[in-house]
Amino acid sequence: MELWYTEEHTEDVRFSIKVDKVLYSGESEFQRIDVFYSKEFGKILTLDGLMMLTEKDEFIYHDMIVHVPMATNPNIERVLVIGGGDGGTVRELTRYQTIKKIDMVEIDEEVVKICKTYIPQTAGKLDDLRVQIFFEDGLKFVRKQKDEYDLIIVDSTDPFGPGEGLFTKEFYGNCYKALKENGILVNQHESPYYSNYANSMIRAHRRIKEFFPICKVYQAHIPTYPSGHWLFGFASKTFDPIEDLEENKWNSLGLKTKYYNTELHKGSFAIPNYVKELLDSEYE
Amino acid sequence: MELWYTEEHTEDVRFSIKVDKVLYSGESEFQRIDVFYSKEFGKILTLDGLMMLTEKDEFIYHDMIVHVPMATNPNIERVLVIGGGDGGTVRELTRYQTIKKIDMVEIDEEVVKICKTYIPQTAGKLDDLRVQIFFEDGLKFVRKQKDEYDLIIVDSTDPFGPGEGLFTKEFYGNCYKALKENGILVNQHESPYYSNYANSMIRAHRRIKEFFPICKVYQAHIPTYPSGHWLFGFASKTFDPIEDLEENKWNSLGLKTKYYNTELHKGSFAIPNYVKELLDSEYE
Amino acid sequence: MELWYTEEHTEDVRFSIKVDKVLYSGESEFQRIDVFYSKEFGKILTLDGLMMLTEKDEFIYHDMIVHVPMATNPNIERVLVIGGGDGGTVRELTRYQTIKKIDMVEIDEEVVKICKTYIPQTAGKLDDLRVQIFFEDGLKFVRKQKDEYDLIIVDSTDPFGPGEGLFTKEFYGNCYKALKENGILVNQHESPYYSNYANSMIRAHRRIKEFFPICKVYQAHIPTYPSGHWLFGFASKTFDPIEDLEENKWNSLGLKTKYYNTELHKGSFAIPNYVKELLDSEYE
Amino acid sequence: MELWYTEEHTEDVRFSIKVDKVLYSGESEFQRIDVFYSKEFGKILTLDGLMMLTEKDEFIYHDMIVHVPMATNPNIERVLVIGGGDGGTVRELTRYQTIKKIDMVEIDEEVVKICKTYIPQTAGKLDDLRVQIFFEDGLKFVRKQKDEYDLIIVDSTDPFGPGEGLFTKEFYGNCYKALKENGILVNQHESPYYSNYANSMIRAHRRIKEFFPICKVYQAHIPTYPSGHWLFGFASKTFDPIEDLEENKWNSLGLKTKYYNTELHKGSFAIPNYVKELLDSEYE
Repeated sequence: MELWYTEEHTEDVRFSIKVDKVLYSGESEFQRIDVFYSKEFGKILTLDGLMMLTEKDEFIYHDMIVHVPMATNPNIERVLVIGGGDGGTVRELTRYQTIKKIDMVEIDEEVVKICKTYIPQTAGKLDDLRVQIFFEDGLKFVRKQKDEYDLIIVDSTDPFGPGEGLFTKEFYGNCYKALKENGILVNQHESPYYSNYANSMIRAHRRIKEFFPICKVYQAHIPTYPSGHWLFGFASKTFDPIEDLEENKWNSLGLKTKYYNTELHKGSFAIPNYVKELLDSEYE
Repeated sequence: MELWYTEEHTEDVRFSIKVDKVLYSGESEFQRIDVFYSKEFGKILTLDGLMMLTEKDEFIYHDMIVHVPMATNPNIERVLVIGGGDGGTVRELTRYQTIKKIDMVEIDEEVVKICKTYIPQTAGKLDDLRVQIFFEDGLKFVRKQKDEYDLIIVDSTDPFGPGEGLFTKEFYGNCYKALKENGILVNQHESPYYSNYANSMIRAHRRIKEFFPICKVYQAHIPTYPSGHWLFGFASKTFDPIEDLEENKWNSLGLKTKYYNTELHKGSFAIPNYVKELLDSEYE
Repeated sequence: MELWYTEEHTEDVRFSIKVDKVLYSGESEFQRIDVFYSKEFGKILTLDGLMMLTEKDEFIYHDMIVHVPMATNPNIERVLVIGGGDGGTVRELTRYQTIKKIDMVEIDEEVVKICKTYIPQTAGKLDDLRVQIFFEDGLKFVRKQKDEYDLIIVDSTDPFGPGEGLFTKEFYGNCYKALKENGILVNQHESPYYSNYANSMIRAHRRIKEFFPICKVYQAHIPTYPSGHWLFGFASKTFDPIEDLEENKWNSLGLKTKYYNTELHKGSFAIPNYVKELLDSEYE
Repeated sequence: MELWYTEEHTEDVRFSIKVDKVLYSGESEFQRIDVFYSKEFGKILTLDGLMMLTEKDEFIYHDMIVHVPMATNPNIERVLVIGGGDGGTVRELTRYQTIKKIDMVEIDEEVVKICKTYIPQTAGKLDDLRVQIFFEDGLKFVRKQKDEYDLIIVDSTDPFGPGEGLFTKEFYGNCYKALKENGILVNQHESPYYSNYANSMIRAHRRIKEFFPICKVYQAHIPTYPSGHWLFGFASKTFDPIEDLEENKWNSLGLKTKYYNTELHKGSFAIPNYVKELLDSEYE
């Protein structure tokens, strides 16, 4: 059977995956949601036609968005996840016994429902007792918080459609306010390679820098995202992700991970010259 | 105009680039050679339909295959490049005044001719006086060498077609012999993500380990190669690429690079757990 | 959303339709069944990935497979449809008050169920009281019949997979036997343009000619079938489709049709020289 | 090698051909010109990315645009071809000894040059002594002619780009004037199936009807044109293409044709009901 999912990375670049079965297709109030099955990637979630995750490589994204801040400050107890409706970020967080509270704010309840039904690999820990899910706009939710969280993870879609507000100056300012005095903000930070993504990356970086004294970028290989070169932002009030890395402490936890390790943690902050130049550029 | 170049990364994964112009298409004695022009990537070279380089991102591959060994041992004087007909590896090598001799062995003279005509960006330094090109089989060439080179760079195609011999045990053994007592062997090492490439990676790694006491793998983000996650092998008789890295010395050379820097050098050897497991696996 | 259905007409020719929604995907005992929705074509039925019908142009196929024999012999009362699980052929037959009995033999009950649920446009008349559906192998069914039908319509898939037996010499011989003394056999007859289809066409034609004194081929424009040039076979014991055409009688019925008319009926038997040569060729 | 030519028949329909070799690509003053080689179709000519002809099936188009008028009036002596730079229409015309003069007006000299070099199958008769080529705008050329030709063939591109003027009311009026008292105008008439083409068809038909007392449409199966269902317009001052068909006379000429025959001639004017309705519709 020849059914192909195609994502246009740019007008001139197409990435196509043979779809063996469409498990779900529907429109929520906010976006189109599709779940495919592919021999190569297992289950695939797309929102508005953009790749969100595949069973084959979601571990890369979720390892990197969670374990990097957690190994930097293993004393994190209160976490806010903004977006992340597939549950993968929460799944990794629940592995830490020391975390006491995980608030997740997802604008689209449908995404959570569908992932619970079709993608238990990521959604299976959303019922953990420490997790509370708020189905509302992350931007509005964070406005109301003050001095509340040790860690905020922005696990959003791209800044087109429902995820747009999560890339604004107002949002980052509110995150700063919502964090405790030694709080950490981690966000998915787009890609440096194709210019439309690179522009989002530059803009996000500049805005976060206005609020946080420490503001770095780290990278991972995520083959199913445009260019396969994906970035995360690490911003904090006090912690440096390299100098403060609690290598022994994290390793003593004995968490088994398929992508992350503490060597990689350090290595992932070493970014190519061309990415550094983009991040420092005046261009927006 | 709608003309698309499509590379099948696996049976179920296609990567397609809109081609604005086909600059050259032909069959050499060894393989099919095509040069395209794309708005997104500039000139593109493919051999037997497989992506070799694009003007947009060839700097990543060539930075990583050359500067990693050169910053580990800045005293390298005699270099052998096997393959590399596009000239990009030689171009980076010629930037080192300290290098006295660069032998390049390329099986397919046509590739060199065509790159000189169509892709001067990479081929422009093949006429450097220190460079001598041998149009013959790399496997046969290296058999005849003994205690000759400080560095061998295997800049080959995938181990299908003409590049096949450059992934054999015999070849690596001959490289060992051709290197001086503190020689370094660097090779393009395929990708860990899709199983056909991962198998080549595992096989190459195991074979190199049989000869070289130091045998490591480092990674780069090359968006136009399958999965965008590409590996290089670093093998040597004495040098460790991290411990022996001559950070200050390399930086004092003042070479401007778009991808490589000495932080990235160290970071690139920190590889994901799943890749380590593959490299250590018994499976071939 | 970028989901594309692709049919490979040959190894070198792909026809792709943007799919807005996958309405059904499943495997029956006999074949894979998919129902898509496309903005351009409405609902689409594919079996084993091959295009069967679209809401936009199914009228062409069903007009031509039914009205050509019915206008040649308006006295037809007993009809056997072999295949045709989508119901479109039966729908057109039920428009004739003079038809008393329609037996339909479809090997795959799932196809009928799914078309009733998803494609009422074609399946809506399968409950007509004159229709009796037999879920069994058409080849076996017809073996048991003798002197029973005025018209047999073979509305089969291509001669790959479940439809294979419906292109054999034994099958056509049994059809001859199952027909009354002035019976007509109409079958979908593949396409003359691409060689794999043309070979099936040649083979079918030769085999039918061995049994039926009158054996002609007529054509229609079906844009969603490979090449858009599709043929039907008209074989009979006594009726000639042109000389015996009951033009006035058929027109007096007042049936509204979107493709068929009696001028077109005559015109459709005028086939290109290259098709005639293929049909007369010795090659199989 | 995976290089694919893709024509978008509509936004939701893509027709793709595997290209073995790009023989020529360039921009003339008027349009982009490409010549491909494909295993399935042989040489392929595209203008501005739109399919013009393939070696495999150009005989269909050229048979139908030339032999239909020539069999209707075998006394035609003076012919004007507008467009037709590939030479296929002229090639068929030169087979008639009775034709004394063939003027061809092609706006783009590059097209003729390239077809002479790469596609002699169609361009091989452009040097016939009766042929005179004018490289100018067909609309302007025909303005200057009066009572000059027995037959005008408009062998144009689609009414987008350089071919646009050849679908205007002014143009058809000038054709009428340029024709002798029993002159015939034949033009490629787009396709009824996809709405963008159907609109061009409707518009052309309405405009021609305003000038010519006899105005009919005939059809052919051209698999490489959008939908495979292509139309031609036959307009004339006196000749009816069916009633006046000189069947015996044409057949006595002994011209060997792969598509056309006089039965098909008559059959091709029998068009489907839905096409008739479109042609009669008020919609433009």
